Amino acid sequence: MRVVCLAGGVGGAKLADGLQQILAPGELTVIVNTGDDLERHSLLICPDHDTVMYTLAGLAGSQGWGLAGETWRVMGSLARLGEGTWFRLGDKDIATHLYRTERVRRGERLTDVAAELGRALGVPSHILPMTDAPVRTRVRTDDGWLDFQDYFVRMHQEPDVREVRFEGADRAAITPEISEALRAAEVIVVAPSNPIVSIGPILAVPGMLDAIGAARRRGVPAVGVSGIVGGKALRGPADRMLVGLGEEASALGVARRYASAELLDTFVIDTLDESLAAEVRSLGLKVVVTDTVMADAAGRVRLAHDILAAGAPA
Amino acid sequence: MRVVCLAGGVGGAKLADGLQQILAPGELTVIVNTGDDLERHSLLICPDHDTVMYTLAGLAGSQGWGLAGETWRVMGSLARLGEGTWFRLGDKDIATHLYRTERVRRGERLTDVAAELGRALGVPSHILPMTDAPVRTRVRTDDGWLDFQDYFVRMHQEPDVREVRFEGADRAAITPEISEALRAAEVIVVAPSNPIVSIGPILAVPGMLDAIGAARRRGVPAVGVSGIVGGKALRGPADRMLVGLGEEASALGVARRYASAELLDTFVIDTLDESLAAEVRSLGLKVVVTDTVMADAAGRVRLAHDILAAGAPA
Repeated sequence: MRVVCLAGGVGGAKLADGLQQILAPGELTVIVNTGDDLERHSLLICPDHDTVMYTLAGLAGSQGWGLAGETWRVMGSLARLGEGTWFRLGDKDIATHLYRTERVRRGERLTDVAAELGRALGVPSHILPMTDAPVRTRVRTDDGWLDFQDYFVRMHQEPDVREVRFEGADRAAITPEISEALRAAEVIVVAPSNPIVSIGPILAVPGMLDAIGAARRRGVPAVGVSGIVGGKALRGPADRMLVGLGEEASALGVARRYASAELLDTFVIDTLDESLAAEVRSLGLKVVVTDTVMADAAGRVRLAHDILAAGAPA
Repeated sequence: MRVVCLAGGVGGAKLADGLQQILAPGELTVIVNTGDDLERHSLLICPDHDTVMYTLAGLAGSQGWGLAGETWRVMGSLARLGEGTWFRLGDKDIATHLYRTERVRRGERLTDVAAELGRALGVPSHILPMTDAPVRTRVRTDDGWLDFQDYFVRMHQEPDVREVRFEGADRAAITPEISEALRAAEVIVVAPSNPIVSIGPILAVPGMLDAIGAARRRGVPAVGVSGIVGGKALRGPADRMLVGLGEEASALGVARRYASAELLDTFVIDTLDESLAAEVRSLGLKVVVTDTVMADAAGRVRLAHDILAAGAPA
């Protein structure tokens, strides 16, 4: 079964891992957010892509990002040179960024470099950057506009976010690989990633919603999962961001976002949020209530199963 | 005593270290070759600069280049990704290249970045790149033109060199810092580096020979040292390169090069080459015969002393 999954970082990577466990090699395609990419220490760094890649390669660190068994020699020497080291890069991880940066600088497409990296690390699924064009998420706080990673990592997501924009999105486009994956998709999955700054940039790429809409009109089910459970984001600042933007920090708030984009036909919420089911249904969405918290490897597979079952023909 | 030393990599770094030991902090300025700089894995790497810098910071590895106590995590991961790793970069060394690359890419002058790096590592001397413009040494072999590090590192200096050129030198210029250093110099020293591909590129920068000549006309002594002893290069391929270019692989061959450039008034040769003294003198050079092989720290200081004595007023 060919599955296309839209994903951000850690939460998206976990669900993608669950899907990969139950699908045949090559059946899963993950479209990853590149809005949180950054240039730092001369390197082009793609945090969400790499989190998904390392996870699907079975190499991820226990913290959910980066690589297992990582060391920090380069960072230590950068610190000695007086460089800010708030965006921590492990030694093995830096090799990935050197590989990518060299190729992108000489004109290769991000999509091609991602495919090379995936092959080199033995990833059995396809990981597609949401676009080959540079798109950069920025957030407006009471102190002005910030680059996303300034807000997310350096400032620990502490400032309230008043507005979000995806710079460069208007000049971006989906890739031929994304068009083809969505044309061939039998199920579309929206991972329990941050709806604003993980899924949001993906949907902002011109052509993305059209291609998803075309698939849905062909009868391809589109199933999303709430990353907010019991009013709290499982990870990251999605709950506070929704409030800051005047929306509701709940599975219902997430469902409203996706319903207004006409993205989904089915929404998966946690058993903890069962009381919201009727309101989600009133948005025109089918609702599946299940355990959405992926506490371990078995949890990833279980949620993946539930999602694919929700997308299966009745 | 303000001393300006022209230097390439390991041999130049050793002599610069000897000079630094006997001069007051800040009195030594080293003009380093950048013709063997390269871009690799997206990084701008300046091998001769860094060899001199690490040596003068007291951080050099025992092999003569790179840093002591180095590890190779990034290289190991690059190899796993299928990257060629013939140009080996240690983890701590990579921090230097990241620091430099980021600043040069955003428009800082190589000279300013070199000064920042030197300060950060506690180097008491000034290290000046020979120019801020990109100059790249290339060598013609029987298989065609090669980038310098392809020849030097990847091919282990095995091919015969038929011709050498310094690409970009015609569009380069010496920096204000070099002009000022040579204006203030009380002694000019040419290190026992490869005369063709270490000192050669420095002299090829427009303005360099003029500025040295102006200093010499003011009476500033210019003392060079042969890096070829007993017909053999102490390190590297200088002897075979001289032969490949139809010159003599000896201290006399080196002296002829420098004499034809009107670079020096005094040439220091090894006791082993004493029989060449008369012929070197016939080129119009004063000759000092001494032990030029810097086998240890004391040897560096001893040679530095002999050179400054040779440059002292009679």
